[in-house]
Amino acid sequence: MNNHKENMTYYNAHFVDSLVRSGVEHAVISPGSRSTPMALLMEEHPRLKTFILVDERSAGFFALGLAKSSQKPVVLLCTSGTAAANYMPAVAEAKISRVPLIVLTSDRPPELRDVGAPQTIDQLHLYGHAAKWFAEMALPEATETALHYVRTQGARAVFESLSSPSGPVHLNFPYREPLLPDYDGIYNRISIPAPVRLISGKKMPDRIIMDDVAKTLRGKNGLIIAGEISKSSVASAILSLSEKTGWPILADPLSQLRSNKSVMDSYDAFLRDDEIKDALKPAAIIRFGALPVSKALTLFMKRHHDIPHVIVDSGGGWRDPLHVATHMIHVDEAAFCIEMCTLLNESQTEWKTAWQSVNEAARSVMKKADGMDEGALFQQFLKGLPDGASIFTGNSMPIRDLDSFLFAGEQRIRVHGNRGANGIDGLVSTALGIAANGENVYAVMGDLSFFHDVNGLLAAKMNKLSMKVLILNNNGGGIFSYLPQASEEKHFERLFGTPAGLKFEHAASLFDCQYVRITSGAQLIEELNQEREGITILEAFTDRAINTEVHRTLWKEAVMQARKALL
Amino acid sequence: MNNHKENMTYYNAHFVDSLVRSGVEHAVISPGSRSTPMALLMEEHPRLKTFILVDERSAGFFALGLAKSSQKPVVLLCTSGTAAANYMPAVAEAKISRVPLIVLTSDRPPELRDVGAPQTIDQLHLYGHAAKWFAEMALPEATETALHYVRTQGARAVFESLSSPSGPVHLNFPYREPLLPDYDGIYNRISIPAPVRLISGKKMPDRIIMDDVAKTLRGKNGLIIAGEISKSSVASAILSLSEKTGWPILADPLSQLRSNKSVMDSYDAFLRDDEIKDALKPAAIIRFGALPVSKALTLFMKRHHDIPHVIVDSGGGWRDPLHVATHMIHVDEAAFCIEMCTLLNESQTEWKTAWQSVNEAARSVMKKADGMDEGALFQQFLKGLPDGASIFTGNSMPIRDLDSFLFAGEQRIRVHGNRGANGIDGLVSTALGIAANGENVYAVMGDLSFFHDVNGLLAAKMNKLSMKVLILNNNGGGIFSYLPQASEEKHFERLFGTPAGLKFEHAASLFDCQYVRITSGAQLIEELNQEREGITILEAFTDRAINTEVHRTLWKEAVMQARKALL
Repeated sequence: MNNHKENMTYYNAHFVDSLVRSGVEHAVISPGSRSTPMALLMEEHPRLKTFILVDERSAGFFALGLAKSSQKPVVLLCTSGTAAANYMPAVAEAKISRVPLIVLTSDRPPELRDVGAPQTIDQLHLYGHAAKWFAEMALPEATETALHYVRTQGARAVFESLSSPSGPVHLNFPYREPLLPDYDGIYNRISIPAPVRLISGKKMPDRIIMDDVAKTLRGKNGLIIAGEISKSSVASAILSLSEKTGWPILADPLSQLRSNKSVMDSYDAFLRDDEIKDALKPAAIIRFGALPVSKALTLFMKRHHDIPHVIVDSGGGWRDPLHVATHMIHVDEAAFCIEMCTLLNESQTEWKTAWQSVNEAARSVMKKADGMDEGALFQQFLKGLPDGASIFTGNSMPIRDLDSFLFAGEQRIRVHGNRGANGIDGLVSTALGIAANGENVYAVMGDLSFFHDVNGLLAAKMNKLSMKVLILNNNGGGIFSYLPQASEEKHFERLFGTPAGLKFEHAASLFDCQYVRITSGAQLIEELNQEREGITILEAFTDRAINTEVHRTLWKEAVMQARKALL
Repeated sequence: MNNHKENMTYYNAHFVDSLVRSGVEHAVISPGSRSTPMALLMEEHPRLKTFILVDERSAGFFALGLAKSSQKPVVLLCTSGTAAANYMPAVAEAKISRVPLIVLTSDRPPELRDVGAPQTIDQLHLYGHAAKWFAEMALPEATETALHYVRTQGARAVFESLSSPSGPVHLNFPYREPLLPDYDGIYNRISIPAPVRLISGKKMPDRIIMDDVAKTLRGKNGLIIAGEISKSSVASAILSLSEKTGWPILADPLSQLRSNKSVMDSYDAFLRDDEIKDALKPAAIIRFGALPVSKALTLFMKRHHDIPHVIVDSGGGWRDPLHVATHMIHVDEAAFCIEMCTLLNESQTEWKTAWQSVNEAARSVMKKADGMDEGALFQQFLKGLPDGASIFTGNSMPIRDLDSFLFAGEQRIRVHGNRGANGIDGLVSTALGIAANGENVYAVMGDLSFFHDVNGLLAAKMNKLSMKVLILNNNGGGIFSYLPQASEEKHFERLFGTPAGLKFEHAASLFDCQYVRITSGAQLIEELNQEREGITILEAFTDRAINTEVHRTLWKEAVMQARKALL
């Protein structure tokens, strides 16, 4: 080996090995030339599973899905230039939804930057504030110092991506030609020292300060509100706190708490009524996780802004767009719950009973949905899922329908969505990334979302993945029919409705997927139960006007029944 | 109108009107809620043509194509969140290829940022160094000062995007709910003052300094090398300089100079031979535009790094990845040529004749390509184009084939490509943007490029555009077969070949395009001559191994004939 080749080989091998030994299991690689040394040394590593995706935007979201599912950082690798810019949407989403990603971009060496060389953009701090940590790497060298440095950077990348709040990190690797390393069997040929181990403590509550917080909550009829939560330990701690205090849990579909029979699941319907909102006014609120999906619930919180409102966030964020927080508590959520269990006592039984009966009344109405509108289909979709299934839900309407129709305690399912920035981009790929980690994924999304990331399907074909996806095709942006824009007839269909007239049977043919058109709820359930390899697209055509009307009728009826239950 | 609605209406109307009166003709809008006030006031403006595109990544490139074709800044508008992040690839390309874009992102107001509100990412300086100019706008107000400010920002955005070197600018608009303005007939109802006019001078050459430069060039057997040039005035000035000096022009296909019979067009073939390279060593070089596509030509320039090498760039860049410049001259290219025409004299006749005969010999070989390999198909493709057609070429192999087979003076065509960062992303959309400006576009690209932006086809369907696109489907990344990676059999197909096995007949069905499978060169010519509305996909299946072999044989033969011509 000449000196250059030796540098390329050892430097990158030590880096890849450091990532793996620090906990990385998956890498998503997009083809390119400048990334050749890193790609070959990843492909060669016996303990790194690689996926090849041509479209870097899809690759970014695929890695996001893998990381959401595995709760471990996933590596992205691409060539130089706009390839790297295509990761931007997934990086932005990962930042806000706190998903660990390690983005590796390949670059020209310093002397070929800003001099008109091909495939060269300014990649330094390319993702700006969306990346938690950025490092411009040194050129490959095989000295002891350089190899120690590169191993340390690998370990740091893993650590930084995971440290609370987790998120995306970016390392930019300059490479000089020739790009080929001597990869074959390299990990058997050389011995690579273990990288530095990085350890970070948890933010633990201080007993004296917690006692002070408890004083403002003790003896009150309170509520626990749980938004998106990814750790199951947090979910079970919240349940214990609810049991101890008797405070009802309003559980967002992404809280992973809906599988518990005891939580409130129909508040999005009955909290649309001012009388109910006032009758059920809590004396205090403790909130965990991201902001819940339900607009009715957020308006309820905003209405009652004059009570102690405690937000617990170990990630150190400021999740309070409602400006209602009285206490912002940055400690480990599970530890907070354990502490509060010892400090708080039980509230009045009537308080919990009132919530339960109102919730029960509204739920029984919501369960009545029937037919081919999106609400009814959503219920059939949920009924058709096998035990242990995972849902990946689109934004706009699907997540709201999930909120309405995912009834507490009926099923053991895991729920995923991209609720950081709530984009309609990258959904197919995120769902496939979750499937690639071994979850049994059932995705559900609208036609515009599916279209936006239809490219993502190639990942399934090239990496032999399986998933079922239900498209609720209402020919355009369904959510706008529920917003004030709907009244602007003059430009509505062109600017907001955007009917694209797409039929995804052809997308199925393009990407070798199976395709079934859904015409009834019963058929949907049947199709969900078919065992099939590969991707199955289930497409149901719905009508925006009918969807809106049926939803509004259901909500009205739910409110009516809930009011009766209140008396 | 209440005060808020009045603010939303007037502020945005004054801004849109200022853009239009400063020269903007086109806006590309992606549907969203937060962007509602701006979208409605754009849609309503009688002199602004709008296009609706669902996928913001495609929208970015579509705007890029529109701006390339019209040489005028094009406006992009999207909602908040990852939507804005999807513009990143097109913004990065626009920065390097110097295309004026005005990116308008909608945002939450300050009190809803970094507080966990939905669809909210940090959009300040979102495009980092890729944007030439960034402004965080004030919240809408209708005071005289605010309206003057917003008109001025509109005019400045246009000016900044166009000032040399032109490129993308970014304005971030915070909007509070409710979002609906009172748009109907607004431009007839109110009178909006004209915005400030901004005027910028040209960088003109200083006569004394030019005289000094001329001294190092005078009396020498020199060469003019022309890379990508968009202004036709520059192209004709370069032709005059060549006529005056007798210096041959080596004209890149994107120089817009290939329609002139006098330029060298086959240098990429004959400059692969060291003997020829040395025999044709120039005593000086003047270079215009971006770095040429031909690797043979760049190696030729690098080999002869010991001569005066003058780079003229009115855009003030540093387009010299070869590190060969002796003079970097930042003045208007046309003015430089005019000045040099008066200062330089003619070189020896034999110099020009030698280049001509070598070029002639190589060209006659390159013209022999025949069959269904990509080189031969490319020739048929070019033969089949009507007069005045525009080519949009993919990167990697198509641009190189264009370089090989676009023979000088045979056709009056305009050539476009995304040669800033040379990405394989956004090509379908860029081509459609050029078509949307009225050019008769014939795009040609590989299967991976077409796949990467297959979403872009929806723009054609939704905005009724016409274009023909030839896909050279070699089932994967064709260019890697020409690179050193080709020797790495162990991981080649998985990491570099990436055969996706896509058949685009189904993409045609999905997006309502016409589809023709091409099986012979004659059929290709016939199909190109069919008059058709909408998008026609012409797909030819080729073989990577055969393509590589045929190219290599042609180059070898071209070199052989060129060497004979040299004697």
